Amino acid sequence: MSKLKAAILMGSDSDLETMTEASLALEQFDIPYELHVMSAHRTPAQVSSFASKAASEGFGVFICGAGGAAHLAGVVAAHTILPVIGVPLNATPLNGFDALLSTVQMPAGIPVATVAVGKAGARNAGILAAQILATGDPELRRKLEFFKKDMADKVIEKNKKIQAQLAAK
Amino acid sequence: MSKLKAAILMGSDSDLETMTEASLALEQFDIPYELHVMSAHRTPAQVSSFASKAASEGFGVFICGAGGAAHLAGVVAAHTILPVIGVPLNATPLNGFDALLSTVQMPAGIPVATVAVGKAGARNAGILAAQILATGDPELRRKLEFFKKDMADKVIEKNKKIQAQLAAK
Amino acid sequence: MSKLKAAILMGSDSDLETMTEASLALEQFDIPYELHVMSAHRTPAQVSSFASKAASEGFGVFICGAGGAAHLAGVVAAHTILPVIGVPLNATPLNGFDALLSTVQMPAGIPVATVAVGKAGARNAGILAAQILATGDPELRRKLEFFKKDMADKVIEKNKKIQAQLAAK
Amino acid sequence: MSKLKAAILMGSDSDLETMTEASLALEQFDIPYELHVMSAHRTPAQVSSFASKAASEGFGVFICGAGGAAHLAGVVAAHTILPVIGVPLNATPLNGFDALLSTVQMPAGIPVATVAVGKAGARNAGILAAQILATGDPELRRKLEFFKKDMADKVIEKNKKIQAQLAAK
Amino acid sequence: MSKLKAAILMGSDSDLETMTEASLALEQFDIPYELHVMSAHRTPAQVSSFASKAASEGFGVFICGAGGAAHLAGVVAAHTILPVIGVPLNATPLNGFDALLSTVQMPAGIPVATVAVGKAGARNAGILAAQILATGDPELRRKLEFFKKDMADKVIEKNKKIQAQLAAK
Amino acid sequence: MSKLKAAILMGSDSDLETMTEASLALEQFDIPYELHVMSAHRTPAQVSSFASKAASEGFGVFICGAGGAAHLAGVVAAHTILPVIGVPLNATPLNGFDALLSTVQMPAGIPVATVAVGKAGARNAGILAAQILATGDPELRRKLEFFKKDMADKVIEKNKKIQAQLAAK
Amino acid sequence: MSKLKAAILMGSDSDLETMTEASLALEQFDIPYELHVMSAHRTPAQVSSFASKAASEGFGVFICGAGGAAHLAGVVAAHTILPVIGVPLNATPLNGFDALLSTVQMPAGIPVATVAVGKAGARNAGILAAQILATGDPELRRKLEFFKKDMADKVIEKNKKIQAQLAAK
Amino acid sequence: MSKLKAAILMGSDSDLETMTEASLALEQFDIPYELHVMSAHRTPAQVSSFASKAASEGFGVFICGAGGAAHLAGVVAAHTILPVIGVPLNATPLNGFDALLSTVQMPAGIPVATVAVGKAGARNAGILAAQILATGDPELRRKLEFFKKDMADKVIEKNKKIQAQLAAK
Repeated sequence: MSKLKAAILMGSDSDLETMTEASLALEQFDIPYELHVMSAHRTPAQVSSFASKAASEGFGVFICGAGGAAHLAGVVAAHTILPVIGVPLNATPLNGFDALLSTVQMPAGIPVATVAVGKAGARNAGILAAQILATGDPELRRKLEFFKKDMADKVIEKNKKIQAQLAAK
Repeated sequence: MSKLKAAILMGSDSDLETMTEASLALEQFDIPYELHVMSAHRTPAQVSSFASKAASEGFGVFICGAGGAAHLAGVVAAHTILPVIGVPLNATPLNGFDALLSTVQMPAGIPVATVAVGKAGARNAGILAAQILATGDPELRRKLEFFKKDMADKVIEKNKKIQAQLAAK
Repeated sequence: MSKLKAAILMGSDSDLETMTEASLALEQFDIPYELHVMSAHRTPAQVSSFASKAASEGFGVFICGAGGAAHLAGVVAAHTILPVIGVPLNATPLNGFDALLSTVQMPAGIPVATVAVGKAGARNAGILAAQILATGDPELRRKLEFFKKDMADKVIEKNKKIQAQLAAK
Repeated sequence: MSKLKAAILMGSDSDLETMTEASLALEQFDIPYELHVMSAHRTPAQVSSFASKAASEGFGVFICGAGGAAHLAGVVAAHTILPVIGVPLNATPLNGFDALLSTVQMPAGIPVATVAVGKAGARNAGILAAQILATGDPELRRKLEFFKKDMADKVIEKNKKIQAQLAAK
Repeated sequence: MSKLKAAILMGSDSDLETMTEASLALEQFDIPYELHVMSAHRTPAQVSSFASKAASEGFGVFICGAGGAAHLAGVVAAHTILPVIGVPLNATPLNGFDALLSTVQMPAGIPVATVAVGKAGARNAGILAAQILATGDPELRRKLEFFKKDMADKVIEKNKKIQAQLAAK
Repeated sequence: MSKLKAAILMGSDSDLETMTEASLALEQFDIPYELHVMSAHRTPAQVSSFASKAASEGFGVFICGAGGAAHLAGVVAAHTILPVIGVPLNATPLNGFDALLSTVQMPAGIPVATVAVGKAGARNAGILAAQILATGDPELRRKLEFFKKDMADKVIEKNKKIQAQLAAK
Repeated sequence: MSKLKAAILMGSDSDLETMTEASLALEQFDIPYELHVMSAHRTPAQVSSFASKAASEGFGVFICGAGGAAHLAGVVAAHTILPVIGVPLNATPLNGFDALLSTVQMPAGIPVATVAVGKAGARNAGILAAQILATGDPELRRKLEFFKKDMADKVIEKNKKIQAQLAAK
Repeated sequence: MSKLKAAILMGSDSDLETMTEASLALEQFDIPYELHVMSAHRTPAQVSSFASKAASEGFGVFICGAGGAAHLAGVVAAHTILPVIGVPLNATPLNGFDALLSTVQMPAGIPVATVAVGKAGARNAGILAAQILATGDPELRRKLEFFKKDMADKVIEKNKKIQAQLAAK
């Protein structure tokens, strides 16, 4: 079986900077992906068409970022059985509370796997996509194990530096 | 020109009791309407098909009620140029804050005319629909004027009763 | 019948920059409008007088922007049967939550068609006004259809550019 | 000078039970008052007329209770130079957050003296009205001093009972 | 009777810039005042001593500004029968929601007359103090009437300028 | 390859009723699972041991439900590379806002796939687990497609009944 | 040295049922305590007197429960150098958000050790008091170790029962 | 007995600037401490190992700072019977509401002594640690008494300066 792709969608090109965190995470795990600007509200036909066909076109997971009344992840989830990860973006005066509640509070039957508001969430969306695709991919699982260990090592390394600085005071 | 209809949509039949307030208000103004249970998440094809055709099938305004991540009004608005009224419903532990923010915080380009959470909002959705349809309908305008005067009279009447009770103490 | 006008009201001249989004949207649809600074709290007589006469003076819809305890839209709605669109403005430390709740949570009988907080909402107020006035105006309806298609085309165009950039990496 | 009266206004007769706490407090201090159901949205003419004339008709302070988009206190304050006390009521699914923000976040120039949401606030509105009217009334001041001492004594008394119960365990 | 003074208290000298709005308003109405930095938490003895004696030392009203867990107004109110106005300040990452709720949600028996968060609230505290002191002061009442008319005139003037600008476009 | 199991963990046996929605969903898709009461705070050793070994013991996905300061999902995610679904429970006076923010706002590096607060979320956690496990399981994918179609059919069926009732009025 | 006592204070006897959780926890660790109803607002002199003398009268820690604008813990902390634990109570329509923010957001210099809203917080206040007093009390430390182990054992036991029930299905 | 140490832990080195307020407070009271960067999510083994051994290695109290889904304090509390102070940090778009609720809303059995969001909280964490350690340390108690008096003197001094400035106007 050829490798499953991830689809990164966002509602506006102003979301691109934040959502790049997701694509960088996917690249770190060598996961092929497509990235599209598509709006649940401005281009609904594109969204429903893309979401409906994704499973049969080699996609394995969605990452959808949107702000405000963030409907993109939910609308994609309505049209696919693939797991859909929602990234709430901080794009209005309400500091992302609107996007968070619009993304996570989905009704029974249509889940959206919601992550944190903003850049931390976008990065975690990429990692979560890797964890999901690793379900059928032992090599990806090993990469995730290495990533986890490396992340711990970096924190331990930082702490060592701080201990040295404190000792030198 | 035959009279324009209103379309009342709701995401679940559990919303029917609240949304009946909207249909009662429409009946009070003799506005013809259809009422449908259609979910932006569970029956997205029905929603986009209905919304896309509504303007050409004699509808003049939408009233959409949904709770939680309330996407219905926004998804309808994505498919029509008719005015869409959104009624946020109190259907989760978060007391309707989720439905309110999911409904009102629409991105530039696709407005949803949002009213209050719950029954007061559902009733007001019916009245707002009447105000909108009255734009091209002088008779409906007269009904709204009568309704407004009648509403004031009832408050004045209630106050008179309370004055009588206070005087009798 | 001569064309119906829109009335844009705002509580303070400090709201002018944000509310200009509404007037630009109206101009885009060739909708005549008046714009006034009038405060529900500082000039209540002006507001009630203007609102009471508006329907008979050729206005068809109100757009009212206010921040904080945003009463302007509600007070206007108390004096007219025309549809009133409320734009909550982010004008206090509370990030617009105060203006949103003060605008949208109207009691049964007096609806305010509330849009998003801030500039996106101001722009959508203009578009919603166009949708409302289009009820009795087939030409305006065609403009809205063109506008909707154009908005989708622009998103599709942006996505094409991003695809080209990604392919060139 | 004859005694100044308090005016208790509320937006709906469904607020009467809560607002009775305010009238009971006024009675406790022998302050004459009128109580009226008047709505900023449904009977705006009554409200502006009553508020405009109040200062010249022997009133010295307003107590205004409303829920949801609670505009009553602000609208009264727009029409009078008398101090206006606002009582936010818990009358919607949003638990009174809407009424609190709609009442307290008044723009510079038009203050509303806001008290707590619900019954505690209604009772405190009556006491605050007494404190305000005591500015020019030494006898009322003495009543307030007695009231304050009595309130402390009751808490001390309750604590003694609890000590006795704990000792008896 | 000599004129009653206002007491402006604030919890920290970092609040001085905001609270100056209150003193400016008092000066506008020729109301004598004292301004003190006193903390309910850091100098509780000063606060209780000052508050307890204020009524007998010629004060007629308190204005208390504090941020965070804003206890100052409530603690002052515990020690006096004078009306206490609370100004919630935006002094923590929580944007003033903490100060607002800490100030307004007083238990039955001890009211605090709460105004808006931040500068608008500080200015309104001064105006509310004037309204309260005007209870026994006809001259102050006339100043308030003039102030109210002047405020309306300024809004009307601003609107005229905007009309001229719009006409000149 | 034998079928991957799901692990349902919850912080307290008082969460069992809500979390049963997750197990029912898994049973609907014939997904084997274990269900355990384990607390991130009361039995941390059990949690870290179970989470650390899960990947090697045939588990493919976690579903973790907790209320209040809901740390369970995050703590599990700290010890595994399997996808972790977090269900925020409404178990304190704060209506689930605490559990939602504690579950979703994970730092970069350790995602938790968060679903809605309460029963709808618990049910969706089971469906999301099925979507995730379907990544490597074509039969499960077919079941999900059937489930999605069936869900739409039921809504359509309900709407037909309502149309019949409306026609009969 | 004789054993240090804990002081449990609450603002109203209506808080007694919830705060009993704190006294039960103290009894479980054989910690002597006094329990008093004392209000920061209604009996401020009692509170400042009690708090000022507590350290010299054998108290080692405070537990203060209050709802609404919950000032009690902060006011006690202003008068003592003993650690003060604050329990925010859910006593108003705002669900305890007011009490939480009023208790926890103390200014630099005067900490309050805040625990969860309501009964869970009251119980934890008793346990935290035990942890604090254990600083100088090795026997109490052993009791806490036993308590922690026992708590884990009970969760493990409950899980075993659930496993048995699941196996029996 | 040798002096008990404090342990300051934080989830990320980006928290160091804020948490330095805690270490400065400890230094002010001559309390020995260690400061470590350790993440409940990225280095869970380090956290559980450190927390489990702390009581036997001379620590008497924990100060844990974290932002977002702030689990660090709770996870530490799960592994120790020492008092754990939690400092919620403002590290996400949600302004620290997430960190506050994640830290304070601990379940019954495992308290976290939560202080204010951000720098004020970090400083207070150091002072609270001193108050806790003073339970068994009369000299530390005297330092706290001096600190409290000094803090009051500084506020009184500042007020004197402001009085001088006002008099000089």
